[in-house]
Amino acid sequence: MVVFGDDPPVRLDRLAGRAKILVCDESSLPELLPVADALLVWDFASDAVRAAWPGSGPRPRWVHTASAGVDRLMCTELIESDTVLTNARGVFEQPIAEYVAGIVIAMAKDFYGSWELQRQRRWRHRETMRLAGTRAVVVGAGPIGRAIGHTLAALGIVVDLVGRTAREGVRGADELNGLLSEADWVVCAAPLTDGTRGMFGRDAFARMKSSAVFINVGRGPLVVQDDLVTALVARHIAGAVLDVFEHEPLAADDPLWDVPGLFVSPHMSGDTVGWRDQLAEQFQDNYDRWAAGEPLLNVVDKRLGYVPVD
Amino acid sequence: MVVFGDDPPVRLDRLAGRAKILVCDESSLPELLPVADALLVWDFASDAVRAAWPGSGPRPRWVHTASAGVDRLMCTELIESDTVLTNARGVFEQPIAEYVAGIVIAMAKDFYGSWELQRQRRWRHRETMRLAGTRAVVVGAGPIGRAIGHTLAALGIVVDLVGRTAREGVRGADELNGLLSEADWVVCAAPLTDGTRGMFGRDAFARMKSSAVFINVGRGPLVVQDDLVTALVARHIAGAVLDVFEHEPLAADDPLWDVPGLFVSPHMSGDTVGWRDQLAEQFQDNYDRWAAGEPLLNVVDKRLGYVPVD
Repeated sequence: MVVFGDDPPVRLDRLAGRAKILVCDESSLPELLPVADALLVWDFASDAVRAAWPGSGPRPRWVHTASAGVDRLMCTELIESDTVLTNARGVFEQPIAEYVAGIVIAMAKDFYGSWELQRQRRWRHRETMRLAGTRAVVVGAGPIGRAIGHTLAALGIVVDLVGRTAREGVRGADELNGLLSEADWVVCAAPLTDGTRGMFGRDAFARMKSSAVFINVGRGPLVVQDDLVTALVARHIAGAVLDVFEHEPLAADDPLWDVPGLFVSPHMSGDTVGWRDQLAEQFQDNYDRWAAGEPLLNVVDKRLGYVPVD
Repeated sequence: MVVFGDDPPVRLDRLAGRAKILVCDESSLPELLPVADALLVWDFASDAVRAAWPGSGPRPRWVHTASAGVDRLMCTELIESDTVLTNARGVFEQPIAEYVAGIVIAMAKDFYGSWELQRQRRWRHRETMRLAGTRAVVVGAGPIGRAIGHTLAALGIVVDLVGRTAREGVRGADELNGLLSEADWVVCAAPLTDGTRGMFGRDAFARMKSSAVFINVGRGPLVVQDDLVTALVARHIAGAVLDVFEHEPLAADDPLWDVPGLFVSPHMSGDTVGWRDQLAEQFQDNYDRWAAGEPLLNVVDKRLGYVPVD
């Protein structure tokens, strides 16, 4: 098997003596892909696997990515092949939900303002927002969106979860426009697919309340960044917190660092201490299944672009 | 009846034509107290009522304070009199619980670090703390402490609530020392009484883990501030967030503004938009009861210094 990426190095102790493990980088990936039976995408932030994917030629029968999103891997040849794709569902849900809940409270209670005032040694009491009874729309009804919804609801927030199609506990995408206009918090936790790319653009921001805060923990290209900046500068919405961006990392001269009301989080909402070990454990668990000929966990529906949830 | 304090002015529209309302300040309080039947302490941050309390002479039969804590009113003459004291129980619980939950997440996820880095236009991914499974000790088992505990538990945090005496769901004060040494989060939401003053001092901080964060939303004098500063500077604990202080407001030259790891919040954790109206409504509800000769709500046990909860 092949591991793509080794920074930080992956520890697969349980596979010692059982699997021949080749660790490769971008340069050696193209020659190894055709001979690999399984591929662990450890460097999940790279586009190299898609670029090197061997078309209809010999290729891994199983690809596992150490990420929740699979958008960087997707190409027609992978979708149409019989290669099984699995992801890291289960590792990021709770941490991301905690992170989003924290963002919501920090914005409602103006923690940033308090820290600014402390820097200026100024005591200034303010009235802040009561969270209970406010409304959140969480776009993305997969495990991460559900965990976010669950956690916000536990804070007394009225939550609408929006998925591609309506089902029990989930509003359909056709209801989104109406929901956006009532939301105090709009949280994007959708997978990046052809159907979701750029879904948060001028129209979506125009529908939101001027007091609304937009939070993106999905993928950068779900948002039309220029439209978000315009909405913030014109105060069509009150604030935004982005954990993901069209281009990561943000360069030091990126204008996004300075947009009023925009908080930059360096793609870390799901990454809690020990996450790399959890990812390695999860892959090894799935490897055990694969070696035993058992069905794999977290199989991505490649046409949908995510692991379907009921 | 007499209202002490009028900044911002209190709106008691429902009492119009029913009660003769005299609004007073510190200078006129001493002459009005002996002739008032009821006193609304609207300026709850002042010590003037205690200072002007008419001893065993004529005095209000009912005092209501627009605050949860009653420590600024307490004096032997009030305690020993038959004057009924009521407080603002019910207004602050949910907002303070939200605030504390936000502080806990903000500290766990290093939001402050992210904001500092944004200011420096630096993209630096970090691993942060997973909240679920961490431990919190909430000191103060009244309605505010309970709301905090409930909210932290909803985030997956293991919560121990500590009260004066052990009872269902509440650990007794004698268990506190042991609990402090295991806690990731130590939250002080106790009433200020002779028994609790200075309870968080050198010994308490010495028992805490070096990774622990201390949060005070109770009253400033519950903490020996110098001992807290020493603990922070020596890194005996990882951080602290104070919403209350020995002397409020903090002066611009107060050294607390600059203590490493100490975040200053200007006594606002419970004060959400509309809180003043809620406080006025609550007083008027109680006034209706008083006028009808019915039992008042939120009667403080003056010897305990708070409204007892089962």
